[in-house]
Amino acid sequence: MTKKALVSLSGGLDSTTTLAIAKSKNFEPYVITFDYDQKNDIEVEAAKTITNEMNVESHKIFPIRLSEIGGSALTDDIEVPKDQQKNKGIPVTYVAGRNIIFLSLAVSWAEVNDIQDIFIGVNSVDYSGYPDCRPEFIEAFQKAINLGTKSGVSGDEFTLHTPIIDLTKAEIIQTGTELGVDYSQTISCYDPDSRGRACGKCDSCRMRKKGFIKAGIKDPTRYQEGVKYD
Amino acid sequence: MTKKALVSLSGGLDSTTTLAIAKSKNFEPYVITFDYDQKNDIEVEAAKTITNEMNVESHKIFPIRLSEIGGSALTDDIEVPKDQQKNKGIPVTYVAGRNIIFLSLAVSWAEVNDIQDIFIGVNSVDYSGYPDCRPEFIEAFQKAINLGTKSGVSGDEFTLHTPIIDLTKAEIIQTGTELGVDYSQTISCYDPDSRGRACGKCDSCRMRKKGFIKAGIKDPTRYQEGVKYD
Repeated sequence: MTKKALVSLSGGLDSTTTLAIAKSKNFEPYVITFDYDQKNDIEVEAAKTITNEMNVESHKIFPIRLSEIGGSALTDDIEVPKDQQKNKGIPVTYVAGRNIIFLSLAVSWAEVNDIQDIFIGVNSVDYSGYPDCRPEFIEAFQKAINLGTKSGVSGDEFTLHTPIIDLTKAEIIQTGTELGVDYSQTISCYDPDSRGRACGKCDSCRMRKKGFIKAGIKDPTRYQEGVKYD
Repeated sequence: MTKKALVSLSGGLDSTTTLAIAKSKNFEPYVITFDYDQKNDIEVEAAKTITNEMNVESHKIFPIRLSEIGGSALTDDIEVPKDQQKNKGIPVTYVAGRNIIFLSLAVSWAEVNDIQDIFIGVNSVDYSGYPDCRPEFIEAFQKAINLGTKSGVSGDEFTLHTPIIDLTKAEIIQTGTELGVDYSQTISCYDPDSRGRACGKCDSCRMRKKGFIKAGIKDPTRYQEGVKYD
């Protein structure tokens, strides 16, 4: 018998791999995607294509107006940096408390759908320096939700699954490829064009590109015309 | 010098008292109110009146569509119970993960406004049985946000202040009255009419009414016509 699991899917490479992993573990995936006024809202369209291709029956698109909070290059009129940002601390693409907000909404959606297993594609290796992607945060948050929800206090405790948290980008791509993920549909770029083609220059594009190279797998990403690599 | 504090204000008795306490402790209050498609959305109007009366300069109304999640008598077409609900477990007015979601958004708003002190009017004494109002949840959540935010990991840790968590309703009313709170503006009823007048029968009305009686303070609540007490 399959067990239900809620998977948070952005439409990017990491969360799509996480969805494939949940399916491979014989969970029946329920998917939630956040439409948070992100500049790269073509991500949401990518997520819909992915759940269709992967035969996911329940896909909830949840609107949450993070632009009301602001302060990030992903939602505001702040330029997405196109030079290398490594080792410069928490970047301008940080959206204050984004994963905390998304996780809270996911838990709520899981609870009303009687789901205890929640999969999220956070990663603490080849990441952009976001504190809400670290294992110690996930562990503390799981504890909090099990103390603060009807489900948690009734004995149906939540488990936050983070199957790619310790993997390098190359390992994530290898894992997903073995599970049949079509990465051409996924969008990682912080600043794609209106057709969903990647800029090739932002932090996220750079990490993704390197991942494919290290994994020895052909990069199927659709790049904007004229993109060259340093 | 005053220090900024973010206060979560619903427009009810508890959170309004919490706002008065934050002011009395010499914090400069920033207020956030959640417009969550609650049936009693007259609460939001009450919150606006309260911040005007209390000379609060920054009042953020944050829209969050919890009706998308559903499952509660406060947001859905589920009848608000009008008989006594005490000792019957978690009631139908429970909104899955509501405080977790509100706290996450509050933390995010605090972070972009460079605020570390957050006041919330949760109460674990005369309460409706919501697990996200308990001290052990608040403590675990504070730990999680300090691990998962830029502010927290940079040394500017958040403190969640819950000044009324251990008070009875009567004690809350006494405290607020001493601080000059005008309770006639606050709305506690789960099912008020369009003019903001209380039903006098729901769980929240009953607890409020008893509080005024026990405190020996005249109840200034505006009730619907014909309301009598059992």
